[in-house]
Amino acid sequence: MNQLIGKYTEELLKENQENFIVPAENVATVLYNHPLEHALLVLSKVGYAKIPVLDSEDRLVGLISLANIVNKMMGLTGFEYQLLEGLTVADVMEVNVPKVKQTEELEDILHLLVDASFLPVVNEDNVFEGIMTRKEILKSVNHLVHELDRRFVIEPKTVLKK
Amino acid sequence: MNQLIGKYTEELLKENQENFIVPAENVATVLYNHPLEHALLVLSKVGYAKIPVLDSEDRLVGLISLANIVNKMMGLTGFEYQLLEGLTVADVMEVNVPKVKQTEELEDILHLLVDASFLPVVNEDNVFEGIMTRKEILKSVNHLVHELDRRFVIEPKTVLKK
Repeated sequence: MNQLIGKYTEELLKENQENFIVPAENVATVLYNHPLEHALLVLSKVGYAKIPVLDSEDRLVGLISLANIVNKMMGLTGFEYQLLEGLTVADVMEVNVPKVKQTEELEDILHLLVDASFLPVVNEDNVFEGIMTRKEILKSVNHLVHELDRRFVIEPKTVLKK
Repeated sequence: MNQLIGKYTEELLKENQENFIVPAENVATVLYNHPLEHALLVLSKVGYAKIPVLDSEDRLVGLISLANIVNKMMGLTGFEYQLLEGLTVADVMEVNVPKVKQTEELEDILHLLVDASFLPVVNEDNVFEGIMTRKEILKSVNHLVHELDRRFVIEPKTVLKK
């Protein structure tokens, strides 16, 4: 693909870059071997529909959502909380989820965030470092679209055929 | 506030405008007087953490999330599905939620979507017409940042003090 983000556009988007990543210490997470009841409690409290799942050494192993858990409560005759008994986060979490490194190209981040409401950020050892969210990227977009015309002269190159 | 989106920037963002609104017929909704068990079933199936609540004449009255319902299941000794018995959507839904008209300024949409993952769209009679989502706006942003440099010459106005 020969589409690249222009120099000035990228510079403007990155002026908010220090806020792109919500650091791990500010993100609610659960361990893969936690009981599902615990994950349900955490998810019902944090205000996020989906959170990262880690192992005991802080490595990212998946994501878990309220819907993942509620679906597991569905029995033959309706919802039964008892169906969660004995189950752990690993039994319902989503694995093989998209994730990025801190060095990820803005280009790729913008594309991945079309389909994911947030992206887990890991280091080279897969240790969880935080998340990049649509919310933070949209703050940068607001900054971009306002500053573009304030700081730059923008003129059409030629009349392009559609 | 004297910040406006420039003409060309706005034009590029709006080239995807026909997709900005996910029309009502493609959005899962519940009625305010539906039993909470029904809303739980819908929310666990649709893959959205939060959906619009309508009245019998398709007017928007609120939003309901999985977390709203799960929180209501929390008893003194843990979660109890039975606590939902006899309750309706109206008992837990969020009211006074941000909403927009189809004619809303892009400026305002971009700002509102920083704090809301989607915005219900209503007509002048408050009849629900669809939703605007961060996902669709991000598609437009991808389009904007790639087309800007392809179609326009962008030059700094002057050296601005930071």
